[in-house]
Amino acid sequence: MPVTVLFAAKSERWKEYEHPLRTALAEAGVDAELVTRAAPETVDYIVYSPNSGIEDFRPFTRLKAVLNLWAGVEDVVGNPTLNVPLARMVDDEGLTQGMVEWVTGHVLRHHLGMDAHILGQDGLWRAGAPPLASDRRVTILGLGALGAACGKALAGLGFPVTGWSRSEKRIEGIDCLSGPQGVNSALARADILVLLLPLTAQTENLIDAARLARLPEGAVLINPGRGALIDDAALIAALDAGHLAHATLDVFREEPLPPDHPFWPHPKVTVTPHIASETRAPSAARVIADNIRRAEAGEPMRHLVDRERGY
Amino acid sequence: MPVTVLFAAKSERWKEYEHPLRTALAEAGVDAELVTRAAPETVDYIVYSPNSGIEDFRPFTRLKAVLNLWAGVEDVVGNPTLNVPLARMVDDEGLTQGMVEWVTGHVLRHHLGMDAHILGQDGLWRAGAPPLASDRRVTILGLGALGAACGKALAGLGFPVTGWSRSEKRIEGIDCLSGPQGVNSALARADILVLLLPLTAQTENLIDAARLARLPEGAVLINPGRGALIDDAALIAALDAGHLAHATLDVFREEPLPPDHPFWPHPKVTVTPHIASETRAPSAARVIADNIRRAEAGEPMRHLVDRERGY
Repeated sequence: MPVTVLFAAKSERWKEYEHPLRTALAEAGVDAELVTRAAPETVDYIVYSPNSGIEDFRPFTRLKAVLNLWAGVEDVVGNPTLNVPLARMVDDEGLTQGMVEWVTGHVLRHHLGMDAHILGQDGLWRAGAPPLASDRRVTILGLGALGAACGKALAGLGFPVTGWSRSEKRIEGIDCLSGPQGVNSALARADILVLLLPLTAQTENLIDAARLARLPEGAVLINPGRGALIDDAALIAALDAGHLAHATLDVFREEPLPPDHPFWPHPKVTVTPHIASETRAPSAARVIADNIRRAEAGEPMRHLVDRERGY
Repeated sequence: MPVTVLFAAKSERWKEYEHPLRTALAEAGVDAELVTRAAPETVDYIVYSPNSGIEDFRPFTRLKAVLNLWAGVEDVVGNPTLNVPLARMVDDEGLTQGMVEWVTGHVLRHHLGMDAHILGQDGLWRAGAPPLASDRRVTILGLGALGAACGKALAGLGFPVTGWSRSEKRIEGIDCLSGPQGVNSALARADILVLLLPLTAQTENLIDAARLARLPEGAVLINPGRGALIDDAALIAALDAGHLAHATLDVFREEPLPPDHPFWPHPKVTVTPHIASETRAPSAARVIADNIRRAEAGEPMRHLVDRERGY
């Protein structure tokens, strides 16, 4: 007999998730009826978003588990009517892979000088090939899971990659520096600089006027990490002075970036709307389907929320 | 005693090659004096371009070899005053690596939907991340050295890659199809289509209206191969009909692409000026330096021209 899986989220999410979820459930070998409406007493699993309108879980008398669509569970974890396991979304595949694609894509975009062609379709044949990746040095500040994965992908394409982290690390293919001395050396060789540091009291405003001045003339800055890593005014000054060639920014102190922020109209800034690393429906659907398969097989579910701890 | 290497090409080439050549000669361990002017009887090697003005090699009495800066030697090979070995430029590193970078960059550009952000810096926060590479199918027509290298790089980034070649091939990580049946299957799964076929009587106009119609709705075409692989009018019609989303073209039937060609102003076409694969100064300099090192060490030089055969 199929299990009934209730998808309880806004209709635009259903549009995004219906096909990936059906595919993932079938591929996981789960015999499921995936629905957006059902009599509560017939529901086995709820794929849940806080804006679904479900606040009282008591009518769901045969509910086996709630699978949160997002990483954050703050809106449901304290619900006293919820008495079954609650899993949060941990979409490692989507988050890491998405970051690698975004960073590799924008490094190659700047390396190849694509913008001149995308913006310059004016009939002028601008001959002259860019240098090879082996002649373009990339520095990544931050060597956590995301920084390391991006560094390996870029090294695989032939870029000489320097990485910097607070504590010493060793990662194959990446020239790893660390500590307060290391950051200046790492900046000095950054034809393209990628920021993938966490935001802490130590890293806030790390990229200030003094550190921007250490970058080589004509360097490009790419920030998919955290907005507050950068002193915005110092960045704009360095771009205006011609010291930096371009900044491509995916994260900001305030998001969405306000329409009147000077980054928007700046000819040397590209704003992208915090898309570098995001839960993706196809990989998230695989995480959900795998968890339902586990529950049905009597295996421990993954990413279960500790209701006491709250996450 | 250092050997004297005369760089005989236009001054803009000197600007491009001086530093890479000095570096490459030093790294190859060649004790060389690199100059742009010298008394002919003092010259050991000439790095040669046909527009250098040198037509009579007889005054170069101690000349050991001529190293052509380009792959084509048609302007010098028949020179009766040249009686020393002549090497042509074979810059495998620059040609293959450059192609991999250009193709990977433009596949990621279209995959990530970069143009919307590069062209749309209007204060509008366009949320919504692209799918992951695993959900974007790339097809490469042509599995020679360039096609295979590009396919491997894209597969390494997570794209499902289909390749097609006239005769059957097996390449790890690429789903290889072949023959007249195979091409239609390869096209049907091409969210992004990359053309890397040689131009022959069989491949000219291969991408015509019928084959474009086999691509999925919204497909993107990338052509760094040969211009005449495509029926230009059929391509423009497919773009105008909305069947294709975009075409990024690096090669054309006539180059430079004439300023009045309809590709230039077309909003769904990006023209790049035949830069995907080109001899690059740093890698070409390494080829030249290695050949001088070989000659000095009494080893056989590479890429020597057969003066009878003419190449």
